[in-house]
Amino acid sequence: MNAEPLKVAVLGCGVVGTEVVRRLHGAGPALAARIGAPVELAGVAVRDLSRPRGVGIDPRLWTDDALGLVKRDDIDIVVELLSGTEPARTLAVTAMKHGACVVSANKALLAEHGQALHETAAHHGVGLYYEASVAAAIPLLGPLRDALGGDRVTRVVGVVNGTTNYVLDRMTGTGDDFTAALREAVDRGYAEADPSADVEGEDSVAKAVILASLAFHTRVLREDVHREGITAVTATDVADARACGRVVKLVTVLERAAGPGHRDGEEGVLVRVHPVMVERGHPLADVPGADNAVLVEAADAGPLLFRGAGAGGTPTAGAVVGDLVTATRRRLLGHHGTTAPVALPLRARTMRDLRTRYHLGVEVTDATVALDEVSSVLRAHGLPVDSVQRRRTAGRDRLVLLTATVGEPSLLSAAKAIAALPSVSGPPRFMRLLDSQ
Amino acid sequence: MNAEPLKVAVLGCGVVGTEVVRRLHGAGPALAARIGAPVELAGVAVRDLSRPRGVGIDPRLWTDDALGLVKRDDIDIVVELLSGTEPARTLAVTAMKHGACVVSANKALLAEHGQALHETAAHHGVGLYYEASVAAAIPLLGPLRDALGGDRVTRVVGVVNGTTNYVLDRMTGTGDDFTAALREAVDRGYAEADPSADVEGEDSVAKAVILASLAFHTRVLREDVHREGITAVTATDVADARACGRVVKLVTVLERAAGPGHRDGEEGVLVRVHPVMVERGHPLADVPGADNAVLVEAADAGPLLFRGAGAGGTPTAGAVVGDLVTATRRRLLGHHGTTAPVALPLRARTMRDLRTRYHLGVEVTDATVALDEVSSVLRAHGLPVDSVQRRRTAGRDRLVLLTATVGEPSLLSAAKAIAALPSVSGPPRFMRLLDSQ
Repeated sequence: MNAEPLKVAVLGCGVVGTEVVRRLHGAGPALAARIGAPVELAGVAVRDLSRPRGVGIDPRLWTDDALGLVKRDDIDIVVELLSGTEPARTLAVTAMKHGACVVSANKALLAEHGQALHETAAHHGVGLYYEASVAAAIPLLGPLRDALGGDRVTRVVGVVNGTTNYVLDRMTGTGDDFTAALREAVDRGYAEADPSADVEGEDSVAKAVILASLAFHTRVLREDVHREGITAVTATDVADARACGRVVKLVTVLERAAGPGHRDGEEGVLVRVHPVMVERGHPLADVPGADNAVLVEAADAGPLLFRGAGAGGTPTAGAVVGDLVTATRRRLLGHHGTTAPVALPLRARTMRDLRTRYHLGVEVTDATVALDEVSSVLRAHGLPVDSVQRRRTAGRDRLVLLTATVGEPSLLSAAKAIAALPSVSGPPRFMRLLDSQ
Repeated sequence: MNAEPLKVAVLGCGVVGTEVVRRLHGAGPALAARIGAPVELAGVAVRDLSRPRGVGIDPRLWTDDALGLVKRDDIDIVVELLSGTEPARTLAVTAMKHGACVVSANKALLAEHGQALHETAAHHGVGLYYEASVAAAIPLLGPLRDALGGDRVTRVVGVVNGTTNYVLDRMTGTGDDFTAALREAVDRGYAEADPSADVEGEDSVAKAVILASLAFHTRVLREDVHREGITAVTATDVADARACGRVVKLVTVLERAAGPGHRDGEEGVLVRVHPVMVERGHPLADVPGADNAVLVEAADAGPLLFRGAGAGGTPTAGAVVGDLVTATRRRLLGHHGTTAPVALPLRARTMRDLRTRYHLGVEVTDATVALDEVSSVLRAHGLPVDSVQRRRTAGRDRLVLLTATVGEPSLLSAAKAIAALPSVSGPPRFMRLLDSQ
């Protein structure tokens, strides 16, 4: 056992930070034994020093000078638990310049500056760890980097946002519309007071960018990710899904995809965040509440499922402390940094390249006539239909169709034509499907 | 990019070895980019040089002198894919003495000599990696070591043997007895010609020992693990399970457990391998065929589920190459070894300390009288019953009871008393339960 303690500075003391500080403050010989040296809390930077924190650390450890803290040359590890990219980026870079490894749970920072931070870390021979930034407690980034490091990942599909999953679960369970379900989620603390980043899918996009760098060894920009949140999901969509043996989930999908101008060896990656109707029996169909689940498909490994708590102070703090243990162990072993993910120039594909199955929900004035007319439009667009149901909700007739696997541009064009049919009351609803096999 | 290639020696070229050699032989710039240096296959040691292998490597790379290969000072990584503890142990130790990191998929070696090998690795400043040794393609050991490295794991329960899972699946699906189902598994290649290590639970015991060192930071000996295989599972047990909304699975369970003489702070670990009746809805209930699934419960992370291919040449080779990528990356970064798991002296608990729910299947001559008599015995032993069913199979009456959570010694004692009842035809069957919540 190394007698010299490793010094840890923590930036930010919100829900996660408080839990991390508690664990470090109470860290006894058990943690020291696992690491190979004692760990010492060297400082906690917060914005507001006057706010009571409920952790009984030495009062001299609190500081509102985060920059001063990371500039100290005796700090081994900086744990960055801020939100947003600044001042997080500046503080992380400064910490690395002063020889500290950085552990971060900040997905916005990693999505925006991950590549540059890895380069800075490599330049200064320090480590960069961020397991907690995606799917909190679920060990996902480590496995993608290590165990799957020699494999060829072909697809990642996951439920990685607990807030939207809770809201959609609620809509499924109660039949509530989106607004009512969201209000309930905010009241119960499952959604933030400003839930827009979650419900608009921005949070999932940041996670997708981080996953792309590790799963596909490529740099995907936020603007390359197709994003639809759940604000437009209606109670009728949820009811349609149930009628088809499905459930609505917001998913993040990353997959290798050939484009229309595909030539051998020229492959791209399509990254998208949007609601889907998941078939019951699919491992993502029964992920409840604030849980997350991610299915990774790789050439050698086959399909792998990871499931667990995707949010919350305690699970996230656990993942942060896990990174801290990894970082301190490697530091003790004389490890100079972490390997930066490779950034291969894989072409970003767009939704025009997507081929999948679709739900179409069409409100009609005359179901019999509409079935004829809608079928004829779909036939004309070359879109085979796998099933049609006639449903009656709130005194109105609806046709609920599930298509075969078709191209997104044809589907969009057919939807437009259907909206103009005399027997149809308005633009059809459509949602992509995720099947269980 | 480092221009100097990293040299890899492979020991053993069976199903997994062939796949690993193929991947190294065909390793192009993609793998080199991920690692940061090219990888070069430096030799493959096999017992029988005359056997055709179907991999088109330079014939000079084959050798039957494994010891000579690992003594070469230019080898960076030795991939050990033998079975059994010798000569695997001697070769691994020799490789480390000559400065090579060792990647192993050999669960017998790690279960028996893991601690000593870690000490040797630490002494020589080299790494030891064995992700493929448990649950093949499922990244499980890395997450336990890294992401959960600061957490307090309370329980690990898994289906980690594909052969027995296939046989039990078959018994459930067809109603076949064990012998017929096993024969079918051997015929189809899901079981080895000598399947005893699998069906007797020995394979699961080795995995449990490896899991205990990473999950509980303690050394559990093989003889401390309670082991029951599936050879005694009958078609009637399987039918009883179905009648109770359950399915029979062979599980490996590791859990923190207090003993009868438990004092504060004195905690033990109970490790057991045996068949259970898993309630439908539990994540392990629907793990099919050769798949594996492991549920890890930790104080901070909560429950985490890992599921995927638990056997097979390709998935296992993928995990081996993952370790190889990790090992080579760290070697390039100047990493001196891996941290050995701590071996805390946690007391090994025995089945006398187990408290769980049980199935009891009692063949009776007179169901009405027997129900009275059996109930009276259970009451006398302080064993509450949650449900009783009367079933008639093959012209015989059976009582199928599920108990509340009770102590194993009381259950065993009650079972003995029940066997002696006049209305009962013989010793009752009993099996432990695994509930979904």
